[in-house]
Amino acid sequence: MEDWAPYVETLGKSARRAAGELVALDDAVRSRVLRIMAAGLRAGREDLLAANAKDVAAAKSTHLDAALVERLKLTEKRVAAMADGVEKIAAQVDPVGQVIEGYNRPNGLRIQKVRVPIGVVLFFYESRPNVTSDAAALCLKSGNAIILRGGKEALHSNRAIVSIISDALKQSQIDPAAVQLVESTDRALVPHLLRLDKYIDLVIPRGGESLIRAVVRDSTIPVLKHFTGNCHIYIDEATTHMQEEVRKVCVNAKTSYPGGAVCNAVEHLLFHKDAATDLLAKVCGDLAAKGVEVRGDERTRALYPPAKPTTDADWDTEYLSFVVGVKVVDSLDEAVAHINEHGSHHTDAILTENIRAADGFVKRVDSASVMVNASTRLADGGEYGLGAEIGISTDKLHARGPMGAADLTTYKWVVTGNGHMR
Amino acid sequence: MEDWAPYVETLGKSARRAAGELVALDDAVRSRVLRIMAAGLRAGREDLLAANAKDVAAAKSTHLDAALVERLKLTEKRVAAMADGVEKIAAQVDPVGQVIEGYNRPNGLRIQKVRVPIGVVLFFYESRPNVTSDAAALCLKSGNAIILRGGKEALHSNRAIVSIISDALKQSQIDPAAVQLVESTDRALVPHLLRLDKYIDLVIPRGGESLIRAVVRDSTIPVLKHFTGNCHIYIDEATTHMQEEVRKVCVNAKTSYPGGAVCNAVEHLLFHKDAATDLLAKVCGDLAAKGVEVRGDERTRALYPPAKPTTDADWDTEYLSFVVGVKVVDSLDEAVAHINEHGSHHTDAILTENIRAADGFVKRVDSASVMVNASTRLADGGEYGLGAEIGISTDKLHARGPMGAADLTTYKWVVTGNGHMR
Repeated sequence: MEDWAPYVETLGKSARRAAGELVALDDAVRSRVLRIMAAGLRAGREDLLAANAKDVAAAKSTHLDAALVERLKLTEKRVAAMADGVEKIAAQVDPVGQVIEGYNRPNGLRIQKVRVPIGVVLFFYESRPNVTSDAAALCLKSGNAIILRGGKEALHSNRAIVSIISDALKQSQIDPAAVQLVESTDRALVPHLLRLDKYIDLVIPRGGESLIRAVVRDSTIPVLKHFTGNCHIYIDEATTHMQEEVRKVCVNAKTSYPGGAVCNAVEHLLFHKDAATDLLAKVCGDLAAKGVEVRGDERTRALYPPAKPTTDADWDTEYLSFVVGVKVVDSLDEAVAHINEHGSHHTDAILTENIRAADGFVKRVDSASVMVNASTRLADGGEYGLGAEIGISTDKLHARGPMGAADLTTYKWVVTGNGHMR
Repeated sequence: MEDWAPYVETLGKSARRAAGELVALDDAVRSRVLRIMAAGLRAGREDLLAANAKDVAAAKSTHLDAALVERLKLTEKRVAAMADGVEKIAAQVDPVGQVIEGYNRPNGLRIQKVRVPIGVVLFFYESRPNVTSDAAALCLKSGNAIILRGGKEALHSNRAIVSIISDALKQSQIDPAAVQLVESTDRALVPHLLRLDKYIDLVIPRGGESLIRAVVRDSTIPVLKHFTGNCHIYIDEATTHMQEEVRKVCVNAKTSYPGGAVCNAVEHLLFHKDAATDLLAKVCGDLAAKGVEVRGDERTRALYPPAKPTTDADWDTEYLSFVVGVKVVDSLDEAVAHINEHGSHHTDAILTENIRAADGFVKRVDSASVMVNASTRLADGGEYGLGAEIGISTDKLHARGPMGAADLTTYKWVVTGNGHMR
């Protein structure tokens, strides 16, 4: 077994040193690096696609789930979208140095809360190469160094992307340790990383429950958890005049991302019993027509016999594929209680014409995003106007829901006096 | 050895249930509880002082440090100040429901970030009874339930205070589990508490390094660390025309709290070599005249021979008493590097007439509060206009520096569409 301690120590130490350099850079410099990086992605797309092809071939040979292979795969179009994404982040307003609040106290003491970079971010994420460029760009934009630990299936792709970023940093005379990829996918290395609280300020784990639980258990660094989403749509009784809308939104929420392998896809539909009679079979039929496997409780199967029976485990399951669980409930209360108990506090929506039902749902569902008459797929940094996101936090502290560049900052109290005492 | 698991499970579960009730209350109700609580503190002061006298007697019999006994002690005046503090918190603007940001997207999707309570807070703190009432009041104001684990020396005082709070809650028909005191000071109970991530949303440990490290190690709940402060004042070379101010601010920062036993007291003074020649002996003399033990490096002792010699350990020490460590540095750079290496990222100040020195210090010192020409003692929720504080976070995430009621909230994205899809 390899001794990872020295490698990991070097990673952390060099990231900390780079962060000390980034904090002193103006936005003009930080944004220029991103534009060079975007140009690099475009110019290097052949190499990038070749590296990605290796990953995809290996993934297929190990019979990785089709939806996950789809997520891993790069195309000319996807590389162009990555480059565009980086340029959009470059063009955003600089969050660093923003005065969040500023006021004078009665004694004349001047108080300002000023945004500053967090420092060094350690990021665990799934095998989606576009996340590598987004995350690096968001961290550089906000003046942070980042250590990337992507899914093992994407290692060749990630190496190619980080090599392009390193070139952009070097070209700008910035320490390339600002963006580092953990070079090995050996799991034994992870606990060492998670004890580097001396060098790393924040860990963001994105992905499966078991990974995130392990990170929380082992980390002495603060963690912002990004669980994938067990998202719900509750179809309220007051939907008589919006049946078309309900059908379209449910289909969109389940199927608009290829394979349904995305955290904001809906996993479970809860129908109010009075909405179910008319609508449940139609919605389930629409979904089945799109290739979705419908599972349902007894009352669902009475209304839509093709549904497979659910087990208790279904309600806690994030399928991340073309499967949906359907349940009939007696009331809004039952829907809210079900969501708060079984959901992952990510994104949950109500479809209703009734303002009291909407308000009650919004107030009582304890999730990062609560939606009224909209598809859960809209829970996204881009859709919320953040430009891009490093992920969707299911934690309650610091940042909740889609996290953009500003969420990768903290603040400092700057207090200016004139010999003030207490 | 007692099995604490069942007791702790009950604590957590009942706090979670109470939090579910608090989230639905309007501010009128939450603030009324606080006013009843303030009245209860005033009316119950005899019992409270009697309970406190037991704690103080026990502390003296175990030869607790005089500064810590001072901190533990209640007087009529201090009880009145506690009640006033609670009323001030009641009168604050309600943070819950505030729309932090709200805007429409180009497609008409309505986005709002709305403040909501965090849920259940677990709070570890030192033996200062006034912290019990402040923390409970801040949590109730912001719609959170709190589990209090105070220092063992204050157990009788804390029981008396929490009994007054319970009465106020019951009188308002609110579940008294909204504010609970951990009834035992057995340390074996703590790891059980720290694994209750099912019920508790946030742990705030205030106090000594070893307590906080243990909490971070054992907790599966997010932690906001409140280290006590190793605060510095750097006396820049550009202080020729502000010598009186320098002398007063340094004395204030060290001695204005009885016994110096407070996190925002200054622990170390760094003199620029050119400021030292004239000022160091005067400042040290002023401090010694107030009963402060002055320790210094060699260059300090050359200028002020009564200083005791420092060892390397001094620079990392938070004395929390009438002791100060003094060092002569060659430059602002050296001062900044020293503070970032040895400080606790709590509060650090520069005294200077030079705007570039002030700006450089503010930008490069990585602390929650950075001050220019002001006493470190001003780092305080009250002084910053937060009304009161649950403590001073030395962490970088969520809240940094003094934390008031608004810092005990998170937010929810409320997204309203009209059949919006992606």
